[in-house]
Amino acid sequence: MNALLTSSQRQLVRVISESGPLSRTEMANLLGLSKAAMSGIARDLIDLGVLHETETVYGQGRPSVRLDLHPECAFFVGISLLEDPAPMILSDLNGKIIARQSIPLSRDPHVIAQAITEGLPSLLEAHPDAKEKLSGIGVALSGFVDESQANCVQSTLLGWQDVPLAKIIRERCGIETFIENDAKAVAVSEKLFGSAREIQSFSVVSLGDGIGCAHFIDGKLYRGNHGGAGEIAHCTIEPGGSPCRCGKRGCLDTVSSMKAIKEMSRAEGLECTSLSDIEYEASTGNAAAIRILHRAGSALGLSIANLIQINDPGLILITHVEGSFDGLFGTVVNQAIETNVLPRYAGQTPIRIKRVDGDVWARGAASIAAHNFLIGPNSN
Amino acid sequence: MNALLTSSQRQLVRVISESGPLSRTEMANLLGLSKAAMSGIARDLIDLGVLHETETVYGQGRPSVRLDLHPECAFFVGISLLEDPAPMILSDLNGKIIARQSIPLSRDPHVIAQAITEGLPSLLEAHPDAKEKLSGIGVALSGFVDESQANCVQSTLLGWQDVPLAKIIRERCGIETFIENDAKAVAVSEKLFGSAREIQSFSVVSLGDGIGCAHFIDGKLYRGNHGGAGEIAHCTIEPGGSPCRCGKRGCLDTVSSMKAIKEMSRAEGLECTSLSDIEYEASTGNAAAIRILHRAGSALGLSIANLIQINDPGLILITHVEGSFDGLFGTVVNQAIETNVLPRYAGQTPIRIKRVDGDVWARGAASIAAHNFLIGPNSN
Repeated sequence: MNALLTSSQRQLVRVISESGPLSRTEMANLLGLSKAAMSGIARDLIDLGVLHETETVYGQGRPSVRLDLHPECAFFVGISLLEDPAPMILSDLNGKIIARQSIPLSRDPHVIAQAITEGLPSLLEAHPDAKEKLSGIGVALSGFVDESQANCVQSTLLGWQDVPLAKIIRERCGIETFIENDAKAVAVSEKLFGSAREIQSFSVVSLGDGIGCAHFIDGKLYRGNHGGAGEIAHCTIEPGGSPCRCGKRGCLDTVSSMKAIKEMSRAEGLECTSLSDIEYEASTGNAAAIRILHRAGSALGLSIANLIQINDPGLILITHVEGSFDGLFGTVVNQAIETNVLPRYAGQTPIRIKRVDGDVWARGAASIAAHNFLIGPNSN
Repeated sequence: MNALLTSSQRQLVRVISESGPLSRTEMANLLGLSKAAMSGIARDLIDLGVLHETETVYGQGRPSVRLDLHPECAFFVGISLLEDPAPMILSDLNGKIIARQSIPLSRDPHVIAQAITEGLPSLLEAHPDAKEKLSGIGVALSGFVDESQANCVQSTLLGWQDVPLAKIIRERCGIETFIENDAKAVAVSEKLFGSAREIQSFSVVSLGDGIGCAHFIDGKLYRGNHGGAGEIAHCTIEPGGSPCRCGKRGCLDTVSSMKAIKEMSRAEGLECTSLSDIEYEASTGNAAAIRILHRAGSALGLSIANLIQINDPGLILITHVEGSFDGLFGTVVNQAIETNVLPRYAGQTPIRIKRVDGDVWARGAASIAAHNFLIGPNSN
């Protein structure tokens, strides 16, 4: 659809995707158009199935109806290369997952492209509408991705250097494809579908086996100069501390990642296989468990405080795939943030905690395709 | 002048102010206009005295002439409220200082406005051209400034809370006025006049009595959600360390600022009144001096490394008002940056060191007025 839209139609789609549902008057003001002109553009987009009317807003004067993107005007496939098998989902424009399956993970990009191609028919089988309106594929991976969201510059997990994955998949499937770093994909997903939709500057900190981070700044994903913005996992948080796989010592990743927490508890002889187990031990007074959660939580909180001091984001969204933030770990994280932020600002940056399920990366991947579909490539 | 320009003229002024001198062909490509249309716009701007021809570029085909903003098409006053007396300078659009004087510092904004008004005639006396083309006043101060660059939200140094300084000065002088935080003013000045002109994303770290920091991201000054972006001075760098005037402990400011370095050397019984003195002591093997410079340099380097990990800027510009970075302190700073950055990226972020003179804040202040003049208020 996007290619067929006029430039004012596309502008309107972009504004709504960035701001959420808007009334015709709000849209006219934002775009500097007359209300009559705006109504015409909106009518055409409703006829095209791109916009639909949502809630009615009662204010001064006549009640007005807000328009939003029609969730079923386009569909996207998202694949996460972070697990084996690799989850592959079909989502609508609202990020709602309408079908899921998985493909075997491979380090060979051509094998991945082949597996995606073979997986598509069954993913789309029960959804003829989605098949017809399939508008892009997104892939999330652990590593560095270039600005055009096409090439994997480097991935330790996949053993890649400069792999043009998007092109390889596109050539095999014939569908527009974009790739992105895992944490950046989650940030785009939160901006597009999630809890950060109306926030212009925010950071996502994703806590899983590793620690990821990504920033939206002034409404745009900020990649940094080498695509390295958000690499807080390798901030030195315990100078001279434990060796990290990156070559340094005392990186945040060596103290606060789920992997590190579990390794520390193993080293202390605790028989814990999950964060919940360690939290339970700590709640019964086990000194080693308490020490580990304090150390991990303090380091994560200090890193987030540094991020707040440096960037003053409008929101910190912490996503985690296991356990809860209601126990000792979460308490220490929050306390360490508060203690290490300039007292004048302490507590002023909203910290939102979000437990995410296993679909988080695949949904993030789909959002990359959706984002490019909505606002065009390279304009994020 | 700005108000009189057409929107395409203004767009061109903006592009040149962001990119540096451009040929007519480059401008036409950037703005998506025909070369004929662009030549017409450029000719009008040359006639208006806004643009002038600069260097000739020899490439393929005919040599082309680059156009740049005419440095004398507008003049600005910049005042620094960081010292007493407060420096007040007159600059052209290139940041060249053509007159300077000073006014007494006061904590009363009305007294400041009065002093500026009284100081203007003598500042402009020998420069009738500047008097006629005076296009704005900028004020730099230590503290938080709101997004509209009009209100001082809070300044510990001046004892202010919510002081509408720009309005008070404008009402007294009758000249458009903008205010800005000191480090942010220096960043704007480096982007507009200085060594970061062609860099879209960079951070300035200013080292003086205190430590300031500000970011340009994607060509725009990034203020953060509460204007607090860049407050690295209050990143906790030595957990549980020395008490800071902010209420926390171990802030970077307590270890690496010039004030902290001098206090530490006093506490160690060294008779040093400047960084150069302490460097000299260190060079003769004085263990206390070596320890102090190591501690200060390591902390500053670690903070900058954290900044690189978090934001991956295209340049770190360290400005300092005294001493040199050629001694032990600078060596330790550079080493600590390198040691604490992800090895894959170590050395890839250019670190530029710039010794600045006492005019740095007043020139930064003038650049805030120039920036608003060029691209319009609130569009930075």
